[in-house]
Amino acid sequence: MSKIDAIPYKIYLSENEMPKAWYNVRHAMKNKPAPLLNPGTGKPMTAEELASVFCEELVKQELDNETEYFPIPEEIYNFYKMYRPSPLVRAYCLEKALDTPAHIYYKFEGNNTSGSHKLNSSIAQAYYAKKQGLKGVTTETGAGQWGTALSMACAYMGLDCKVFMVKVSYEQKPFRREVMRTYGADVTPSPSMTTNIGRKILSEFPDTTGSLGCAISEAVEVAVSTPGYRYVLGSVLNQVLLHQSVIGLETEAALKKYDIVPDIIIGCAGGGSNLGGLISPFMRDKINGKLNARIIAVEPASCPSLTRGVYAYDFCDTGMVCPLAKMYTLGSSFMPAPNHAGGLRYHGMSSILSQLYDDGYMEAVSAVQTDVFKAAEQFARVEGILPAPESSHAIKVAIDEALKCKQTGEAKNIVFGLTGTGYFDLVAYQKYNDGLMDDYIPTDEDLKASIAKLPKIG
Amino acid sequence: MSKIDAIPYKIYLSENEMPKAWYNVRHAMKNKPAPLLNPGTGKPMTAEELASVFCEELVKQELDNETEYFPIPEEIYNFYKMYRPSPLVRAYCLEKALDTPAHIYYKFEGNNTSGSHKLNSSIAQAYYAKKQGLKGVTTETGAGQWGTALSMACAYMGLDCKVFMVKVSYEQKPFRREVMRTYGADVTPSPSMTTNIGRKILSEFPDTTGSLGCAISEAVEVAVSTPGYRYVLGSVLNQVLLHQSVIGLETEAALKKYDIVPDIIIGCAGGGSNLGGLISPFMRDKINGKLNARIIAVEPASCPSLTRGVYAYDFCDTGMVCPLAKMYTLGSSFMPAPNHAGGLRYHGMSSILSQLYDDGYMEAVSAVQTDVFKAAEQFARVEGILPAPESSHAIKVAIDEALKCKQTGEAKNIVFGLTGTGYFDLVAYQKYNDGLMDDYIPTDEDLKASIAKLPKIG
Repeated sequence: MSKIDAIPYKIYLSENEMPKAWYNVRHAMKNKPAPLLNPGTGKPMTAEELASVFCEELVKQELDNETEYFPIPEEIYNFYKMYRPSPLVRAYCLEKALDTPAHIYYKFEGNNTSGSHKLNSSIAQAYYAKKQGLKGVTTETGAGQWGTALSMACAYMGLDCKVFMVKVSYEQKPFRREVMRTYGADVTPSPSMTTNIGRKILSEFPDTTGSLGCAISEAVEVAVSTPGYRYVLGSVLNQVLLHQSVIGLETEAALKKYDIVPDIIIGCAGGGSNLGGLISPFMRDKINGKLNARIIAVEPASCPSLTRGVYAYDFCDTGMVCPLAKMYTLGSSFMPAPNHAGGLRYHGMSSILSQLYDDGYMEAVSAVQTDVFKAAEQFARVEGILPAPESSHAIKVAIDEALKCKQTGEAKNIVFGLTGTGYFDLVAYQKYNDGLMDDYIPTDEDLKASIAKLPKIG
Repeated sequence: MSKIDAIPYKIYLSENEMPKAWYNVRHAMKNKPAPLLNPGTGKPMTAEELASVFCEELVKQELDNETEYFPIPEEIYNFYKMYRPSPLVRAYCLEKALDTPAHIYYKFEGNNTSGSHKLNSSIAQAYYAKKQGLKGVTTETGAGQWGTALSMACAYMGLDCKVFMVKVSYEQKPFRREVMRTYGADVTPSPSMTTNIGRKILSEFPDTTGSLGCAISEAVEVAVSTPGYRYVLGSVLNQVLLHQSVIGLETEAALKKYDIVPDIIIGCAGGGSNLGGLISPFMRDKINGKLNARIIAVEPASCPSLTRGVYAYDFCDTGMVCPLAKMYTLGSSFMPAPNHAGGLRYHGMSSILSQLYDDGYMEAVSAVQTDVFKAAEQFARVEGILPAPESSHAIKVAIDEALKCKQTGEAKNIVFGLTGTGYFDLVAYQKYNDGLMDDYIPTDEDLKASIAKLPKIG
């Protein structure tokens, strides 16, 4: 039996094969990501300025483009061991159902109560907050994966956790809210009357169901105005991609165990945390000419920042209290259609990924949500796991690529990130099951309008 | 470093260490479980009689008290590999939180979309149905774990799946229903107008919210009256405990890897499928005098079949269409109070476990649900996993035993079954979080009334 034939359904690393340090892909980048700018001065944010919003250690990680590896502190490492290493799964059943010669692998990050990869960064951020002697942290959450992950991490570290949850999700996803409460978090629907920005938005738009950008503004306001508090964010930032590199490092180690060289690496992309983490070590090899793989970002057609956005400085939030980031963006006033159920609704994209995309190291494609749910259902029925809508964007493109291999007869190695489970997305699945889901693609005029509102900087 | 110190957070077996055969604990039992009786004749059910309800191969497994091992067919084995082996987790964080010298281990069966151990038997039952050339299967589901597990297995095997879901759950757990529909199942609220027994019950009790016993009757009626269909059941039966022995065999193999000898083994007990599967190989050693461990069944104080029931022949369903089983029972007319949120609401207990309990090989304790949810929350906050209410009964008693070790200073090895996750039980968690959950313990008069209705047989 050849080594390839012996590949198990799930490649598990042992605990001592888990990465001991996070990998910083900025070290390998020839063009570094653009710095965050102070919206008042237009100058790069200094460590001092950032320290009023973020923990000190995280500010260092945010600004450091040179250090290649950051050791994972022991307490974080021990927490990781409760749900990591995560399996790299060989999708034998999907391959059989597609009748493809391709070998499909997925890195499954959903085997934890938060249901997604977000826990990899939330525990790190909670740890540094605790280490700094803080009392608590604030954050926003949309679908609720990040809020859940942060609640779990704060319960473990003994930190207070205030979550601003987009109002429509707060009302439509009461179970997500209850998980957070079970972990001891204080969950407020956003916009709320507890902040200046919330009161302002509610006075202008009393019927608003909220947005991620608005919830960010509220969370930041509370963090900077409450002694002993800082703000934490689950995606987009450099520090988050650093923590999420644990996904890519484990994937790399698991593939190496069986001498598997990936031909195509696929990840869904909202703010970019999962994709950035998954591809980090592979991107290093690609930049250095050691790996020839295609790297594909998949985004929803309803919120297409890479495929239809512009590369420019923009606000990260609606209230415009956050620093400016240079990124592929649709403009901070862009709102995906309310019928969009597939997650990944952020208007911008991680600065690291934006730069890599701009430099040509990465491709991007978009998918409409009915295609995404169709792929999700097909995957669920043969592979067992009910995937999150976000993750299903990657499934959709992995299936497309595997079917191309069927045409060409190539046995390509396709690796994709399965970021989480869909247990809390069953309203969306119900819509799909009932045939009530439709697709929305913003018009060029829609995008022109929101892009026209970009700040005139950079 | 001693071998004990090197115990990882999670002990994973490799795929080739997975058990190749199910273990039949009846082989080791000195007193075999009592046979199923034909309610009409009072005589033991023959294979022919059972074959109108169950698949042939499953009838053989049901009646066979002698064969020690049943090889696991390759197709089932390949399905198992998608989500098994499941981890045996060392609860380091819980031990630390309790400040106990005890070593706590739990076998976690929730890492699959059905969210519980039920998949171990549903795939086996679906496989044998398909092998027999059947078109589909029928079943009932209460909380929905079994219905979900069966839907997944039928999707994989290409079988139709008709699920009668207790009406109150159908309405209160729409997400469970949607998972089943995503896997292609046909889900009907029970009682329904589609069966004779359903129509009869609805004409007598038009406002009933249904019960497990009634849903069983409907599912059996459809199975025996529809060509190409059979009925499948997720607990209680001997065949189900046989399939679930994979839990115990993996646990045994994982403990042996690190020379760990269990002192206490704890499982929650509703119909007995998880507990029976977990303890099977350990019970063999206990019967044979090779193991001195305590084995503890934990049941809800609101449905206490072992601790307050009688050992007698009883109906398995409300419609009295099923064979009679000898078991610890509260009477088939017993209904747990509607405020009971903790699962495990079946009036009887597996015949195998009933006999083992009656023979003194097993202890039983009961717990009230607020204590169970308190333990669940404590566990979730330190171990990360949000446990199912059912599983949390075992957590509660594991914590109690670990705290006793703290008193005595003993480093006992405590092993318990964590059967599933609580993702679909958040209505119950919300009730607990809001302080609205109360406890219910049936009075002696309640139990006397339902026990008085037992059939006069055996």
